[in-house]
Amino acid sequence: MLGYFGPPGTFTHQALLTFSDAPAKPYATVSGALDAVRSGEVEAALVPIENSVEGGVSVTLDSLSNGHRLMIIREVLLPVQFSLYGRPGTTLASVRKVLTHPHAAAQCRDWLAANLPAALVTEGGSTAAAAAEVADPSSRYDAAVCADVAGEMYGLQKLAGGIADNEAAVTRFVLVAPPGKPPQPTGADKTTLVAYMFADHPGALLEILEQFAGRGVNLCRIESRPTKTGLGDYCFSIDAEGHLRDPRLAEAMLGLHRICKMVVFLGSYPRADGVRPDVARGFADEDFLDAREWYNTLVQPSGD
Amino acid sequence: MLGYFGPPGTFTHQALLTFSDAPAKPYATVSGALDAVRSGEVEAALVPIENSVEGGVSVTLDSLSNGHRLMIIREVLLPVQFSLYGRPGTTLASVRKVLTHPHAAAQCRDWLAANLPAALVTEGGSTAAAAAEVADPSSRYDAAVCADVAGEMYGLQKLAGGIADNEAAVTRFVLVAPPGKPPQPTGADKTTLVAYMFADHPGALLEILEQFAGRGVNLCRIESRPTKTGLGDYCFSIDAEGHLRDPRLAEAMLGLHRICKMVVFLGSYPRADGVRPDVARGFADEDFLDAREWYNTLVQPSGD
Amino acid sequence: MLGYFGPPGTFTHQALLTFSDAPAKPYATVSGALDAVRSGEVEAALVPIENSVEGGVSVTLDSLSNGHRLMIIREVLLPVQFSLYGRPGTTLASVRKVLTHPHAAAQCRDWLAANLPAALVTEGGSTAAAAAEVADPSSRYDAAVCADVAGEMYGLQKLAGGIADNEAAVTRFVLVAPPGKPPQPTGADKTTLVAYMFADHPGALLEILEQFAGRGVNLCRIESRPTKTGLGDYCFSIDAEGHLRDPRLAEAMLGLHRICKMVVFLGSYPRADGVRPDVARGFADEDFLDAREWYNTLVQPSGD
Amino acid sequence: MLGYFGPPGTFTHQALLTFSDAPAKPYATVSGALDAVRSGEVEAALVPIENSVEGGVSVTLDSLSNGHRLMIIREVLLPVQFSLYGRPGTTLASVRKVLTHPHAAAQCRDWLAANLPAALVTEGGSTAAAAAEVADPSSRYDAAVCADVAGEMYGLQKLAGGIADNEAAVTRFVLVAPPGKPPQPTGADKTTLVAYMFADHPGALLEILEQFAGRGVNLCRIESRPTKTGLGDYCFSIDAEGHLRDPRLAEAMLGLHRICKMVVFLGSYPRADGVRPDVARGFADEDFLDAREWYNTLVQPSGD
Repeated sequence: MLGYFGPPGTFTHQALLTFSDAPAKPYATVSGALDAVRSGEVEAALVPIENSVEGGVSVTLDSLSNGHRLMIIREVLLPVQFSLYGRPGTTLASVRKVLTHPHAAAQCRDWLAANLPAALVTEGGSTAAAAAEVADPSSRYDAAVCADVAGEMYGLQKLAGGIADNEAAVTRFVLVAPPGKPPQPTGADKTTLVAYMFADHPGALLEILEQFAGRGVNLCRIESRPTKTGLGDYCFSIDAEGHLRDPRLAEAMLGLHRICKMVVFLGSYPRADGVRPDVARGFADEDFLDAREWYNTLVQPSGD
Repeated sequence: MLGYFGPPGTFTHQALLTFSDAPAKPYATVSGALDAVRSGEVEAALVPIENSVEGGVSVTLDSLSNGHRLMIIREVLLPVQFSLYGRPGTTLASVRKVLTHPHAAAQCRDWLAANLPAALVTEGGSTAAAAAEVADPSSRYDAAVCADVAGEMYGLQKLAGGIADNEAAVTRFVLVAPPGKPPQPTGADKTTLVAYMFADHPGALLEILEQFAGRGVNLCRIESRPTKTGLGDYCFSIDAEGHLRDPRLAEAMLGLHRICKMVVFLGSYPRADGVRPDVARGFADEDFLDAREWYNTLVQPSGD
Repeated sequence: MLGYFGPPGTFTHQALLTFSDAPAKPYATVSGALDAVRSGEVEAALVPIENSVEGGVSVTLDSLSNGHRLMIIREVLLPVQFSLYGRPGTTLASVRKVLTHPHAAAQCRDWLAANLPAALVTEGGSTAAAAAEVADPSSRYDAAVCADVAGEMYGLQKLAGGIADNEAAVTRFVLVAPPGKPPQPTGADKTTLVAYMFADHPGALLEILEQFAGRGVNLCRIESRPTKTGLGDYCFSIDAEGHLRDPRLAEAMLGLHRICKMVVFLGSYPRADGVRPDVARGFADEDFLDAREWYNTLVQPSGD
Repeated sequence: MLGYFGPPGTFTHQALLTFSDAPAKPYATVSGALDAVRSGEVEAALVPIENSVEGGVSVTLDSLSNGHRLMIIREVLLPVQFSLYGRPGTTLASVRKVLTHPHAAAQCRDWLAANLPAALVTEGGSTAAAAAEVADPSSRYDAAVCADVAGEMYGLQKLAGGIADNEAAVTRFVLVAPPGKPPQPTGADKTTLVAYMFADHPGALLEILEQFAGRGVNLCRIESRPTKTGLGDYCFSIDAEGHLRDPRLAEAMLGLHRICKMVVFLGSYPRADGVRPDVARGFADEDFLDAREWYNTLVQPSGD
C-alpha cells in the first residue's frame, strides 16, 4: 500500500490519483508519511517537495535528509488550482474569516486582498483540514481556500474558483521508497542529493558547483538548508540532471563524495516532464567510454 | 517610532528591547511591519530574517525583495530559548493540546515527542499569540510553547524551560528602514542583496559565486528563492562579508549588476558579532588603491 | 628615425617597408634594436615577436620584459615566404651546403629533406646574413634559405621559391617605442603584458586566466617564460583582446596587479587584422557604465 | 644501446654519464636521436627538455609531439656549468671571436659583456661542436663557451670557469623510449603530455587547467606551443605531478581527453628530485577508493 501526506483531499492526494487508484493511506504530516516508509507500514509515500511559489518544502527536505535513508523513485507535477469554498448558503460578500494552509494563503494573497479586503485569514495545518473545519456548522470560520477535491469531499459550496495569483504555479511531489537499486536510466532523469560542506570553508559551495559544471551536469534546483548546528552552517539540497548511472553524473557524485563532509543520495528517477538534457561536447556517455578506452591503452599497451 | 513583528512578547520584541526601550509598534505580520516602513508609519521595523534551525525566514526574504525598496541598517542576534507555559494550575502531565508557531514546533520537536508524546501540537501565527490564546480560560489549548517574556506577559505558569532541542540555536533579526545612504563602514560589516539570474542559464549560480570569490569576498549565507514564475526559476538571497564601500565588495556588486537580470541591494550594516573578515593577499583596500594608481600611470604617464 | 632587426633584407625589414619608406637603421640583434630605443638613438624599432611555426620569439619577449620599460605601439603581420638562393651559376642539383637561420631551417625542413636530402644545413644568425655569406665567392656554403629581398639585395640567383612547408605561416612584428600614453582605442585593439606569479603558488595561472575570463576578455596568445631563477619558476607573456582604456580590460589589469607579484604593461595598440572582439552579454562598455551609475545611486542616493 | 644528443662532450653526454657508462651513440640533432629510437636503432635516447634560463627546448618538445609516439621513462637534472676554453697558449685578453651554442651565449651574456666586451660571439649548433671547431688550429674562432668535459676532450685550455650568469641554473634531460607500459608509480612521479585545444575556443586553456586543479593535481611546467597552422593556434606542453596510475591524475587525463581535440601522453616517470606532492584533502588515493566504494553501494545495494 502507498501512503501520502493527507488528509484525503489534499493536493498530494490529487497527485497520487494521477498514477494510482489503489487504496492509499493518508498521514497527517510529511514526517509521519516518511516514517511509515521507514517502518515498512507502507511501501512508499507521496509527499510535496517543491512549490513554484514558496520554494522547497522545508519539512520534506529535512525529513528526507535526516533519519534512515530513503530513496525517491518517481516525481509528479501538478498545476496549483485554488478555490474558495463555504458552507452551503454562504455568499462571497458575507465571508469574514477564512481558514487555509500558509502556502495557499501566500499563493492567493493578492486575490484575497482584492476581493475580501476585510476578511481575517487564519493559517492552519492543511487546506483539506481547513475545508473539514469549515464544514462543521459550529466553526468560527466562514470559508476555506482549498482544492476542489477537498471542497467537494466536505460538501461545501464553491464561492470563487481559480483564485491563485499565479496561474502557472506548479507543485512537485515525490514518491519515496526504502533505499534500493535505483530505477533504470531513461535518458531523461533527475538525481536528488544533499551535500554537507566541511565547516568554515567559504569556497565550499563554489567547489560543489564545480563538481557538476566541470562534468557538464546542469542543476535543476539548489537550496541551502541549515544543518541545525548554528547560523551559517549549511548543507545544499540539489536536483541534478541525469541518472546515477550516467558517467558524467557518476563522476560528479564521486567528486562530491571526496570534497564534502557527507553526501546523502536521495535517488535517480525519471523526470515528470520528460525533458532530456543538452549534453555539451565531451560529456556524452560515448565520450566517457572513449576516454576510458584510450586510458587503458596507455596503462596497458596491447601485447604487454 | 520603530515597528516590529509582534504581538508584544515575541522573540522579535525581545530582540528590539536589546537596543531600544522607546515605545514601539507591533505588527501582526512581517509584511505588515515592512509596509509600515514603506508608508512612513514607522521609521524602521525589526523583523526576523534567519533562524539557525529553519533557515531563512521566507516571508521576510520575499517581502524585502518585492515592493518598494527598503534597506537593512542593523542586525541583532538572539539565542533561542523556548519554554512551555500553561494556565495557572495546569500540570505538565495534564497537557493534551499545545499551541505554538511552526518554527517553535520544529525547534522543540524532540522535546515534545519525548515529554508529551500524546499531546496534539497545533501551529498558529506566533508564539506570543499562542500564549494569549492559552491565557483565555475558554481556550481549547492547554499550553503554549513560547518565550518567557510572552508567558509572563499573559500571566501563564512555566511548566518546563529550556525545551529547544538545540541549545545553540540563534535567531537573526534585521532593522529595516527606507532606502538611504548606508551607515559608515566599520570594518566588520555585512551586505545583503538578492541576485536574479537570467532565465535558462544553467551556470548562473556559478558565475554569481565567482563574482564574490574572484574578489576575495566570503559569503555568510546564500539561499535560493523561487521567483514565483515557474519551478526552477530562482533568485539568490545573499549575505556577503563587507560593506558596499569596501572596494572588493563594490567591484563584486558591479560585476553582479553586469551579469544578472537584476540585483536588489538590501543594505550594508555592522555585523552583530563584530567579526572582521580575513582578507586574502591582494584584496585589501590598499591593494585596490595601489592597483588603481598603477593603472593611472599607464593610461596617463606623468608629464603627458 | 626608426630602427629594426637587420641586416637589410630580413623579414623585419620587409615588414617595416609595409608602413614606412623613410631611412631606417638596422641592428644586428633584437636586444640591440630595443636598447637603441631605450637610449633614444631611434624613436622606435620594429622587431619580430611571434611566428606561427616557432611560437613566441624568446629573445624579443625577454628583452621587452627586462630592462627599462618599453611600449608596443603597432603590430604588422607578414606572410612567411622563403626561397633558396645561390651564387649565379649554381644549380639546385649541385647544392651541398645550405646556410640559413634556425627558424627558416625549421620552416623549410620538409622541403629541404625532400629536395636536397644530401645537403648539410647550417644555422646562422639571420637569413639576410646567410645571403650575404653565400654571396662571398670564397664562402664554403652553396646556397641560402632567405627572403627574396635578401637574395636580390646580394645579387644571388633564385634556385627555388615558395619552399616554406606551411604556406599559411605568418610572422608578427611589433613597433616598440619609449613608454608614453597608449594610442587611442580603435575598437579592434590588442594589449600585451607580462604577469609574474608569486613563487610556489600552483594555482596562479588559473587565477591569472580567471582575471580575464571573469571580465569577458579573450586572450590571443599566452606563453610561459622562465623567470631565470630556477626550473619551474615562470612568468606569462600574454596578448589580450582590447585596449587598456576598455573598461573590461582595465578591470582585468587592476585584478592582475592585485594578485600578481608584478605586471609589466607592454602596450595597447590597433590589431593588424582589424578583428573586433565578440563581447559577451554584460561586458560591453555600456554595461560597465550602467553598473557604475547603479552603484553610485546606492552609495549616494539622490538628495542626500 | 642508448643514444644521446651529441657530439660527445655536450651537457647531454654529461647527464647520460650520471646513470650509465655503457657505450652510447651520439646524434647531431635532437630529432635525429628521437628518430633513432623510433627506428629501433637505439633502445632509448637522452635529450634536453627544459632549461631554467631559456625555458622549454622547442625542438625537443616539438619532436616528441610529432611523428610516432614515444615515451619518457626517466628524467635527469644537471647544474649548468660553463667555462671559456681556448687553444693552448691563448690568453683571455687575446680572445676576439667566441663560438658557442645560443643557449650558452644567453646564459653567459653578462659575463661575456663584462669580461670580453669587444669579442664577437657567434652561435653554432652545440657547445661541444664549438670546442671541436676551436681545437682546429685553422679555426677563425679563438675560444669556445662549453662544458669542461668538452674543453678537456678537445685538448683545450681553460681561460675562465663558472662563467654562467645564474649559478642556480639547471638543465633537465629526459630519457625517451618507444611506447610501452609506464614504469611503476613511486609516489614521487611526473607525467608529461601535450594537449591540443579545439580551434577558436577562447576559454580552452582555462578548462584544461581546471581538469587538473579540480582533481588536486599541481603542474610543474606548462608551455604553449604553436600547432604550426596559424598564429594563435596553440597546444600546451604540460608536466603534471603524479603518475598515470594515480587516481587523481587518471581522472584528469580522462577529463582532458574528453574536452581536448587530442591529448598526447608522453610518459609517467620518477621525478629526479624525489619530491612527493602535497595532496589536498579529498584527493588522496584512499579518497578515490572510498568514493568508488560508496558509489558502488548506491548503484548496487548489497543483497540485490
